[in-house]
Amino acid sequence: MGYLLPMPRYALLIDYNGAPFSGWQRQKSHPSVQQAVEEALRRLDPALDHIGAAGRTDAGVHATGQVAHCDLTRDWDPFRLSEALNYHLKPAPVAILKAARVADTWHARHSAHERRYLFRLIARRAPLVHDAGLAWQVTHPLDVAAMQAGADRLLGLHDFTTFRSTMCQAASPVKTLDEFRVEAHDIPFGTEIRFHLRARSFLHNQVRSFVGTLERVGSGAWTPADVTTALQARDRAACGPVCPPQGLYLAGVGYADDPFL
Amino acid sequence: MGYLLPMPRYALLIDYNGAPFSGWQRQKSHPSVQQAVEEALRRLDPALDHIGAAGRTDAGVHATGQVAHCDLTRDWDPFRLSEALNYHLKPAPVAILKAARVADTWHARHSAHERRYLFRLIARRAPLVHDAGLAWQVTHPLDVAAMQAGADRLLGLHDFTTFRSTMCQAASPVKTLDEFRVEAHDIPFGTEIRFHLRARSFLHNQVRSFVGTLERVGSGAWTPADVTTALQARDRAACGPVCPPQGLYLAGVGYADDPFL
Repeated sequence: MGYLLPMPRYALLIDYNGAPFSGWQRQKSHPSVQQAVEEALRRLDPALDHIGAAGRTDAGVHATGQVAHCDLTRDWDPFRLSEALNYHLKPAPVAILKAARVADTWHARHSAHERRYLFRLIARRAPLVHDAGLAWQVTHPLDVAAMQAGADRLLGLHDFTTFRSTMCQAASPVKTLDEFRVEAHDIPFGTEIRFHLRARSFLHNQVRSFVGTLERVGSGAWTPADVTTALQARDRAACGPVCPPQGLYLAGVGYADDPFL
Repeated sequence: MGYLLPMPRYALLIDYNGAPFSGWQRQKSHPSVQQAVEEALRRLDPALDHIGAAGRTDAGVHATGQVAHCDLTRDWDPFRLSEALNYHLKPAPVAILKAARVADTWHARHSAHERRYLFRLIARRAPLVHDAGLAWQVTHPLDVAAMQAGADRLLGLHDFTTFRSTMCQAASPVKTLDEFRVEAHDIPFGTEIRFHLRARSFLHNQVRSFVGTLERVGSGAWTPADVTTALQARDRAACGPVCPPQGLYLAGVGYADDPFL
């Protein structure tokens, strides 16, 4: 009596402000980005099952390039799908930048070979007004060259036990960090420091552990060599303070065959 | 029986997000930026009278460089004054970037010889997430070269009756526009257009009337020559639609002797 038709799979490129959410992942009692996107999808397709994303961002962490996939019961023009989802997502601060039809075997997380993160740190004395909630603020000046020297010591293949949360569920703390660029931009009465990171995958709290540690280097409390000492300790207790989430953005996910190009 | 001591005068450089305010100017029943700054000042000096600003921004308009002055009953170290005000301003999205002691004859509005405005317009299909409330969004592409050609037609000395609100209280609609630069920046899945304007002074709603009109040029509904026709009409009815306030920033005020340098 009938047979299962393959359900068409779509990849979604997602932009969100993480402030009102408990993170990407669905929780019982707190709103999540996953729930917001799933609820919008169910307005179009009540049969929708859960969706999976490339990176599970923490509470308060933003994205400009999160990627998820979903299986729908009927074909959608990808542009019309993104438009309909954006209509139903309002007023949540979540937007679908692009939707694309992908193969049934394509998987937002498993097919990804690279994640890119941006961290925005602003050093200025006066409280942030326009960037409140969009960057981490410190009120003292920072030595950007020292921070880059510290970042350089984290590049490559390492056991990053020092820089992962004790809650991290990754099978191994050994990862390769491919890029860690520290860019300084003058802003009125201060400096914005942008950290650009790239790796196949990241450990839980890895970027915030890095940035919190490098802030200690920038402020002069640590030397760049202390970063190597902390790394080599392979001990969570050797990490600098983990910085707050509001400066962190999942900026992009890399695929061998980018569905959004 | 005693005589009046001169009260020391201070200039304040002010950064604010206009969203929660009815504008700069104090109103009876709505919160204003002026009221927020005056209330913080009264925590330090209960005798404070009203303060005056260089530009009266409208409801929802932001500033990164508003300037006001105040007379206090005692001397303050300018840095300590800005720190104390920022403490008392919390949690309002208003920050004192710098305070400076100025001469008793110095006046935030009368001493100013130039105002600079920035307008941020973002053209992209998906709703704004991180820049919501910080820019005006349109969902269609814009021809930036045509917009610059239209802006060029507004430069110099003109009767700007077409581009001022019927509520404008300026004595004359004749003003000189010294700069009107249209800068395009690629952003993911869209374009950010930044308008930079500079003049001795502006009429009420002048920038929003300009930008709303140039958006019509960028979308192809108007030609750059239509901007000249509208200007020459000297008729408010000839203006394009006035654009919304959330993209507008009072970016700076020029003084012969900049007190903040």
